[in-house]
Amino acid sequence: MKFLVDQQVQDIEMPENLKLNTFLQEFHSDCPHPQCKFGFYGFAFGQSPFPVPKIVQDSLARNSDKGAYAPVPGIPELRSAISKYNRHYFRMDVDPKRIYVGPGTKELIFNLLEILHGTVILPTPAWLGYLPQIRFLKKNYHMLPTRANKKISPNDLKKLALRLQDRQKILILNNPHNPTGLLYNRLELEEITDVCRDQDITVISDEIYAQTTYDFSKFVSMGKIYPEGTFVTNGLSKSHAAGGYRLGYVIFPQHVSDLKGQFKKILATEYTAVSTPIQHAAISGFEISKEIDQYFEVTRNIHHIMGEYTYHALSAIDGIKATRPEATFYLLADFNSFAPDLQKADILTSQKLSESLIIHPYHTAIVGGDNLVLERTDFSARIAYVDYDGAKVYQNYLDCKPKSNGESAEFVKNNAPKIVDGIKMIGNFFEHLRRESIPYVQAKTE
Amino acid sequence: MKFLVDQQVQDIEMPENLKLNTFLQEFHSDCPHPQCKFGFYGFAFGQSPFPVPKIVQDSLARNSDKGAYAPVPGIPELRSAISKYNRHYFRMDVDPKRIYVGPGTKELIFNLLEILHGTVILPTPAWLGYLPQIRFLKKNYHMLPTRANKKISPNDLKKLALRLQDRQKILILNNPHNPTGLLYNRLELEEITDVCRDQDITVISDEIYAQTTYDFSKFVSMGKIYPEGTFVTNGLSKSHAAGGYRLGYVIFPQHVSDLKGQFKKILATEYTAVSTPIQHAAISGFEISKEIDQYFEVTRNIHHIMGEYTYHALSAIDGIKATRPEATFYLLADFNSFAPDLQKADILTSQKLSESLIIHPYHTAIVGGDNLVLERTDFSARIAYVDYDGAKVYQNYLDCKPKSNGESAEFVKNNAPKIVDGIKMIGNFFEHLRRESIPYVQAKTE
Repeated sequence: MKFLVDQQVQDIEMPENLKLNTFLQEFHSDCPHPQCKFGFYGFAFGQSPFPVPKIVQDSLARNSDKGAYAPVPGIPELRSAISKYNRHYFRMDVDPKRIYVGPGTKELIFNLLEILHGTVILPTPAWLGYLPQIRFLKKNYHMLPTRANKKISPNDLKKLALRLQDRQKILILNNPHNPTGLLYNRLELEEITDVCRDQDITVISDEIYAQTTYDFSKFVSMGKIYPEGTFVTNGLSKSHAAGGYRLGYVIFPQHVSDLKGQFKKILATEYTAVSTPIQHAAISGFEISKEIDQYFEVTRNIHHIMGEYTYHALSAIDGIKATRPEATFYLLADFNSFAPDLQKADILTSQKLSESLIIHPYHTAIVGGDNLVLERTDFSARIAYVDYDGAKVYQNYLDCKPKSNGESAEFVKNNAPKIVDGIKMIGNFFEHLRRESIPYVQAKTE
Repeated sequence: MKFLVDQQVQDIEMPENLKLNTFLQEFHSDCPHPQCKFGFYGFAFGQSPFPVPKIVQDSLARNSDKGAYAPVPGIPELRSAISKYNRHYFRMDVDPKRIYVGPGTKELIFNLLEILHGTVILPTPAWLGYLPQIRFLKKNYHMLPTRANKKISPNDLKKLALRLQDRQKILILNNPHNPTGLLYNRLELEEITDVCRDQDITVISDEIYAQTTYDFSKFVSMGKIYPEGTFVTNGLSKSHAAGGYRLGYVIFPQHVSDLKGQFKKILATEYTAVSTPIQHAAISGFEISKEIDQYFEVTRNIHHIMGEYTYHALSAIDGIKATRPEATFYLLADFNSFAPDLQKADILTSQKLSESLIIHPYHTAIVGGDNLVLERTDFSARIAYVDYDGAKVYQNYLDCKPKSNGESAEFVKNNAPKIVDGIKMIGNFFEHLRRESIPYVQAKTE
């Protein structure tokens, strides 16, 4: 039997994580060096390497008997804990009634895009998750390319908004930012807010990496600066290394009531509620406690150490530029100065560059530019620095915190040798590319 | 700030469970007898009252450390367990590659409706969950009202299909059936299949109540009869009393490949995957074991006892007709013979009937006809017979199984007094309605 599929389903592309997984699987059987047992230097996966906090694990174990359906917006104890969490960490007063819990911020952002009328403004580079959602929902959208500093220019935002006919416009703000690791400061958020107020722009502020901000005092939520027009999303995935738990939340703008009813209807129509045991477990993750506070501090410090190392090591390679991350576990590496050499080697797209980097002997997995909503010919890539044993490194950090730059570099070498060696491999690749018209890559790309 | 909401969001109605919850909450503050401490005779909620099987709870507790994202279609061990489960219980050979796991069958059905082009055929009465999904997705649809036996007539299905222009048509089959509790036998499924083959109708067969079939040998999956054209959905919610866990699965038709890729893309775009600890826990629920087998047997026997009692007790009330359930924990009660009396009391819709039954002194919560996709003036209602302490009743059943009809009736009286008294209240309501022009209802409806 032949089945007909709706057109908008066929039109969207597979999100990056899926494409990459498939590619890595396929590559293994293709490798021209079958004796090669080495896997990958994993700079591609956007997943925190640490264990879920013990206090959250224990809470899930204690609540495994909770088999009943939960209320659509989330169980009251969880919404109350999230409210207190926002006050404590983000200095925001949020009535629990403004908080809706969902199975991950990905789905909550999808649900927001489902209900909100209007044209979407997507600054680039961007996490690839947004675009398939926008396309699948057949929403009007416009890219807003950033300039050299990789941040939204309020002026460019204003110019774009003036061109758009739609009464309602939706800006997707991602702060801290994936893939650049950059953070918007208060002044920058205020300037964006001025344009939004002026041009009637609604903001979805994806703040899933908020808790990873290295100097945490610097993080400011858009929900504080533009409370009447911002939907803030956050969750367990990155801060609590629990992407697999599938729990996120959205904070609705102030003084909105009918909209929450519409949203509730959509959640009830599509998925009822988040897994009840997971909701109970999440309470321990959002409640203020010494354990959780220490967990945030340790994990963000380790991300900081790895990020600084990666930034400096990549920047030390002649021709590579990189953003200097202030949060997350990513940075954006710019290989465009190699464009002439890449083109000579018949590497014309960032996808081809990713494929060339993955093969023997480089074995380096990165997320290429077209997966970051950049031009296909933009040789930029997201570099995630999480390829180490999180449980072990967490303990090593507790046992002996590095106290200087030298100790930090030593810490990386001892604890994350694959990051160190992987960056060398990227260096080798571009050196070969320039010097020897890259025999290995040609073997693959013939 | 004012937000604009897309039209199709405003157009859909709140699903029954939500509407009812809100209604019950509101009613409490409205009750003209504030000294009344009694809650409700709960015939409205579609939730199994039993605890989640211990073996599944333990498995969730053991797997609380699984914080990593799971593969989009589900973890391989779970898909393999579901495959074996289908062979053991439903005598179906299903390659694990045909199985996709999702956060509840509700969302999986929504996802199927998202990707499948075509007109939906919805037999009525129906579970209310389908209709908001169909409307929200702006799909063409046609009702297929059933006749006196409350089952799909193959002839009517054929006539409707011949009228539809769409190349692809999607029949939503719900077997065993919510709200009637009826079961389709093999012959009936074969007759429906003949029409489907002839008219190119794709079937989504929602078999979430399969495991509750009282005489389990009688259950036949549509996936066995029409394997090339049926998507079978099932999950943990009803069989394992774990609606709150949020885990379901869909079995794709035989010999379908591209479609699975399209489906995977949609899941990755919307929600990535089901909660990883929940997936690990579910393995124990689908693996063949003595514990699970006993759990299914005990729970379906208790549902059977409660169902028979409810059917006989309601049917004994003059003027009430009821379906005799062969599965699920529901039956459909037909109060239409009271229509003249109801109209005299200004009760013109099934919604109004539900409201009248809930007030003092009746306090009886039912799901009225318009929530079952029937005409608003159809005085039918779904009666769920689960208002008892599932853990206690499970143990009492093990301690002393009723061996005769008399013992079964005694078992219900001892273990589910609210069911017994609630049915009496329904009887009282209609008696008052006829005899005394129902003073209590008038007090409320003035």
